[in-house]
Amino acid sequence: MAPVSSQICPRPVGSSSVIQMAHGSGGRSMHELLARLLPLLPGTVHQNVRHDGAIIPVGMWQNLAFTTDSYVVRPLFFPGGDIGKIAVNGTVNDLAMCGAQAKALSCSLIIEEGFCVATLERVMASMAEAARVAGVEIVTGDTKVIDGGSGGNLFINTAGIGAVSPGIAINPSRIVSGDAIIISGDIGRHAVAVMSARSDLTFTPPIESDSMPLTALVQALIEAQIPIHCLRDATRGGLASTLVELAESSGCGMAVVEKEIPVSTQVRGVCEILGLDPVYLANEGCLVAIVAADFAQSALKVMRTVASGERAQLIGVVTSDHPGMVMMSGQYGTKRTVPMLSGDQLPRIC
Amino acid sequence: MAPVSSQICPRPVGSSSVIQMAHGSGGRSMHELLARLLPLLPGTVHQNVRHDGAIIPVGMWQNLAFTTDSYVVRPLFFPGGDIGKIAVNGTVNDLAMCGAQAKALSCSLIIEEGFCVATLERVMASMAEAARVAGVEIVTGDTKVIDGGSGGNLFINTAGIGAVSPGIAINPSRIVSGDAIIISGDIGRHAVAVMSARSDLTFTPPIESDSMPLTALVQALIEAQIPIHCLRDATRGGLASTLVELAESSGCGMAVVEKEIPVSTQVRGVCEILGLDPVYLANEGCLVAIVAADFAQSALKVMRTVASGERAQLIGVVTSDHPGMVMMSGQYGTKRTVPMLSGDQLPRIC
Repeated sequence: MAPVSSQICPRPVGSSSVIQMAHGSGGRSMHELLARLLPLLPGTVHQNVRHDGAIIPVGMWQNLAFTTDSYVVRPLFFPGGDIGKIAVNGTVNDLAMCGAQAKALSCSLIIEEGFCVATLERVMASMAEAARVAGVEIVTGDTKVIDGGSGGNLFINTAGIGAVSPGIAINPSRIVSGDAIIISGDIGRHAVAVMSARSDLTFTPPIESDSMPLTALVQALIEAQIPIHCLRDATRGGLASTLVELAESSGCGMAVVEKEIPVSTQVRGVCEILGLDPVYLANEGCLVAIVAADFAQSALKVMRTVASGERAQLIGVVTSDHPGMVMMSGQYGTKRTVPMLSGDQLPRIC
Repeated sequence: MAPVSSQICPRPVGSSSVIQMAHGSGGRSMHELLARLLPLLPGTVHQNVRHDGAIIPVGMWQNLAFTTDSYVVRPLFFPGGDIGKIAVNGTVNDLAMCGAQAKALSCSLIIEEGFCVATLERVMASMAEAARVAGVEIVTGDTKVIDGGSGGNLFINTAGIGAVSPGIAINPSRIVSGDAIIISGDIGRHAVAVMSARSDLTFTPPIESDSMPLTALVQALIEAQIPIHCLRDATRGGLASTLVELAESSGCGMAVVEKEIPVSTQVRGVCEILGLDPVYLANEGCLVAIVAADFAQSALKVMRTVASGERAQLIGVVTSDHPGMVMMSGQYGTKRTVPMLSGDQLPRIC
């Protein structure tokens, strides 16, 4: 683990070691910066950099999925990931939640004046590696420089487009009473990893972010012809907020059994010490799948064959009771209503 | 003209008049904020807000154009526009420069804690109006909140996808010696408008930003079967940097006649007083078209029939002399090499 924050920059040697306002001007300085950064994204963004956009052949796609996310996580580096890795995986996963395979990403940087160029290069290399792993290309981009502040801020927007296979319709309106609620893995690791980097807490072994692409997991379900009614990755607001969102938008109730929700021993320990509820902790590689009741076991079996779904668990059922609400059965048989996250447990988590 | 800066916020009445960190948490506060903002984008983003992305039918498209831009302009409001208007038009125009008609935009907000919600609503309404005028839908979005600073910062990323008509190939590699260089309108208005708002300079009548969609102009050229070799909107870095970029990426020279470049009397006056060169001033509704030599006059004629091209002018020719360089013939017959913008004339212009 090397939670090097962006503030740790080699001593400036010449004008190009930190970002200056001129790097956002559209002139020579910006082109010099891009010439330094773009080779770090081999085979991806640089072929389109001298045009205003990328052209992508549509071929036989029937439907296109389109999504966007900005990433503002602090610190930029944390155990198991960094802002670049989650900027790629987060958007790839939003496409996967539509049943789409990511085809192309854009990358738009907002960089604070004074930001360390070497740190920027490290983030770009991380994006390139994440894109390679996820099998997606970064095809177009933009760079802006803002003034003020400590020079420590970097924001990354990635938008993504993906192809949706014919016949796929995954959205909250398809959720019906009786459906099975499955989670793909253990929760809370991303939030705890960011928290540990932010507060210089060190765990042994380190608790690492779960940031990873979920495309293979979703495609395995699609290929196995599991009737997927809805998918949602449990990011900001955690599993609890995700379930409440799905309950509210589908008009159904969700009945969840707390002890079935996978939480690692380490994350559970941190939650107990700090008084956190793991169901509100953000994840970056964990999805909720709502599937037709009869396919719960076959869905679980398929998910467990994929690395990102090895710890998949059936955690509850959709019900016509308490419409729009999530009820959780606790470890001693108690039942409680689960509200959406109120306030913020941990801001700037992604 | 009402250059109300974001700092001018109604006195907070309750917790919801300014942005708080919790508005970016993914929980209840964020949903309440979105419930307030999304009705301002009627028929656009709200139908997809409860899913991770939008689904767009591809139909008969052959090729897809994909682009992204983040907008960081200060102040947020200036004569003739605001950050929301340029966030829509800028991305619509990047698609137009690929020969594409914008089909869908994403909108990702990064908002500083303390930002005025009423100001945010005003920006959203401006985006909705610009989208209506440009004939594009905002179909998906994201909201993040960052801490620190004065509460005055708002950054908007829009990514866009567009359909490219069959047979269209517009890019710098198609530029050849002999091509005509046409500019669609008078230059410098956007930069001067932003500068006037920033420094509280008032001109009578006000010099307004030229921010507008250029899709109709490009489509008119395509429909008239003009052989368009390349298009580029002259934004950051101005006309000069745009021409140098095109010269460098095509390997051709550009010979431009200064007196043919349209500059309004007012902008010329401001430039003379402040010692600015209009060819380096940013535009938000002005493009350079490089077309086959024999079609220069017919292209001009077509462009002048469209509102955004009324002031179109032939300003020069592509040449095999001085490859990769731009030469400008001055008003007294002098010739000078035009470099790309060096440093920054006016940062955070878009």
